[in-house]
Amino acid sequence: MNLEQVRTLDAADRLRPVRDRFVLRDGVIYLDGNSLGALPKATAPHLAEVVERQWGEDLITSWNKHGWIDWPQRIAAKLAPIVGAKPNELLIADSTTVCLFKLLAAAVAAQPGRSSILTEEANFPTDLYAAQGLATLRPDVRPRTVPREDIPSAIDQDTAVLFLTHVDYRSGLRHDMAALNETAHAMGALTLWDLSHSAGAVELELNRSGCDLAVGCGYKYLNGGPGAPAFLYVSERLQGRLQSPLSGWMGHAAPFAFAGKYEPAPDIRRFLTGTPSILALAALDAGLDTFGGVAVADLEAKSQELTRFFIEAVEDRCGSETQLASPRDPKARGSHVCFAHPQGYAVMQALIARGIVGDFRPPDLIRFGFAPLYNGYEDAWHAADALAAILSTREWDRPRFLEWQKVT
Amino acid sequence: MNLEQVRTLDAADRLRPVRDRFVLRDGVIYLDGNSLGALPKATAPHLAEVVERQWGEDLITSWNKHGWIDWPQRIAAKLAPIVGAKPNELLIADSTTVCLFKLLAAAVAAQPGRSSILTEEANFPTDLYAAQGLATLRPDVRPRTVPREDIPSAIDQDTAVLFLTHVDYRSGLRHDMAALNETAHAMGALTLWDLSHSAGAVELELNRSGCDLAVGCGYKYLNGGPGAPAFLYVSERLQGRLQSPLSGWMGHAAPFAFAGKYEPAPDIRRFLTGTPSILALAALDAGLDTFGGVAVADLEAKSQELTRFFIEAVEDRCGSETQLASPRDPKARGSHVCFAHPQGYAVMQALIARGIVGDFRPPDLIRFGFAPLYNGYEDAWHAADALAAILSTREWDRPRFLEWQKVT
Repeated sequence: MNLEQVRTLDAADRLRPVRDRFVLRDGVIYLDGNSLGALPKATAPHLAEVVERQWGEDLITSWNKHGWIDWPQRIAAKLAPIVGAKPNELLIADSTTVCLFKLLAAAVAAQPGRSSILTEEANFPTDLYAAQGLATLRPDVRPRTVPREDIPSAIDQDTAVLFLTHVDYRSGLRHDMAALNETAHAMGALTLWDLSHSAGAVELELNRSGCDLAVGCGYKYLNGGPGAPAFLYVSERLQGRLQSPLSGWMGHAAPFAFAGKYEPAPDIRRFLTGTPSILALAALDAGLDTFGGVAVADLEAKSQELTRFFIEAVEDRCGSETQLASPRDPKARGSHVCFAHPQGYAVMQALIARGIVGDFRPPDLIRFGFAPLYNGYEDAWHAADALAAILSTREWDRPRFLEWQKVT
Repeated sequence: MNLEQVRTLDAADRLRPVRDRFVLRDGVIYLDGNSLGALPKATAPHLAEVVERQWGEDLITSWNKHGWIDWPQRIAAKLAPIVGAKPNELLIADSTTVCLFKLLAAAVAAQPGRSSILTEEANFPTDLYAAQGLATLRPDVRPRTVPREDIPSAIDQDTAVLFLTHVDYRSGLRHDMAALNETAHAMGALTLWDLSHSAGAVELELNRSGCDLAVGCGYKYLNGGPGAPAFLYVSERLQGRLQSPLSGWMGHAAPFAFAGKYEPAPDIRRFLTGTPSILALAALDAGLDTFGGVAVADLEAKSQELTRFFIEAVEDRCGSETQLASPRDPKARGSHVCFAHPQGYAVMQALIARGIVGDFRPPDLIRFGFAPLYNGYEDAWHAADALAAILSTREWDRPRFLEWQKVT
């Protein structure tokens, strides 16, 4: 295949026009949208409006006048088609870790007599830390970590919550959410899913797959900006009986009554805690608008095609110089792929020096994320090309490159 | 006194030039900076730089290139002279409520055998809710609320933490922090102070007054923007033995080692949880810069003068139409004052219609905050004038005003 043919693939991509919603620099191929999504063109003007007109001019009255008080729900509702949930099951709040803690604690409290939080050894560290932190407050509860393959058989009548990350941050391995929800429910366990590496890149059907609880990240595929607030999902059927121990005034049934006793709001708002950053919410709002008019099935189809194309291109050009460390079957993974190389860190630095931005994950993984809204076949093609050139010439050993590493 | 004399007071105010650091609209007198601080002129350009150049161009590399990873500490260090603490005792993180929960939980865990969180009946609701939420996870611990005057005698050997708000959000009453720290320490209790209505308006000496723990709000007198992140303070002497149960990857000793077991950072960073919003941090950074070159003693002196001037002006013009609901002695309160009026809500609406923006707090309080960085004597003079006119004419009963209320 040559560059012209690759460009034909891009031209035929029905999501291609969406790329124009983003600021993308010439000379940079950005394959790290799974870590920090690219900047939408609408973000800076929207923020300027919120800062200069709303905050600057309307000041405190903006909480009502511009509806700031409802933004955590209003903005979350834009996620409904992206994750396959009802708008009233979603909320924007806090950070991913804080949201995980809240829902984990709420779930455990709703499962008296069950003592284990079942999770995966290779789960993302902050997920494990959230469970470990909760256990310091609830000595009767313990995180139980098992290898991936043992999960289904480890779910038992002592399992309070099955707590998993849908798409693994390294390998990209994707769990079968519907099947695990079913197994968990058969044992009376609740399920809490971390969707950080899924939402906005793979098709999610939280309702149809029987999900109880979920949390996801706003700054990866959702393009909400660095450290964007998280989102949380609580199935409608559970909202009445779950309660977050991080009770704060924004989650009160009547926040402006200033009552001394906490009474949780009757709906999803009970999972709010303190006053949310309106500026961070505004940026996430613009981030979610980049999904406007996009069918989530098209997102997943593009992710699959693009990652398959990239894997083939790398293997074609690099041969055995690097090994695929993600599943070959696109349905078994998310929208990023990893290759292993003993000099992975240096290889990624050399790629970045050439303007191909992915990242490195210990011990030896070079990771490439494909954001279906703005990455294309030509990006993948050039990235594979650069990787092949670097591996064949051991570019990271060159004096000039080492010099460059020192100054950056 | 006439307007010319009032303007002479403003001209003599050594903080007067600082007012030019803020966007202040013609026709609006903003007396709600204790709820949402005014917009600093530097905020919009700084945010544009962070969004367009750092996020937009440097993308994921900004975490190192622009030092985003250190912003929670770097920005918090600007608070050191404002609150009288060492830079390494401060951190920007989460919301006020989440920070209160973290430090409360950490303090209680460090006080085995002590079962009460002693607080004040009239404490700000979210503070009470944080304690109530913690008690759902720690049934061996209970919030104990007492009337203000009973606090010193209620501190006993069962008190794990004395948990108070320094300046009351309604009355403005200010606790004697040093004396209460001493009483608490004599009984072996720790102290946690909510500084939301103090920081940036009254002189604080967290170190010298023997404070153990504190949390404050970024969006009031610190001008960090709507819902700005909070700050937290942990005395250096306690950092090694306190640990937050909201353990997350940003608080790990080695966040990028991706270890499965949580090991808290050796220093103040252990109180970080998830990834912070960089945009929210950027706005708070610009907010804190408005304090550049300002001595905190001058802040407090100006607050005292200005609020005393306002109280006198109101009493002089309004007579017995409204009653002061804050201490007359400025050293006994913060930088806001409340007056009581049976039609308080309607009176405040009428003031806002005239461009005098304060707020209402149930059941009958009209509240006026004086931000020493940008409010002046002329603001106070016009506000008292407008209040007198409204009270004498019962302006809120007029048909035209009622019409106006309907449309806003």
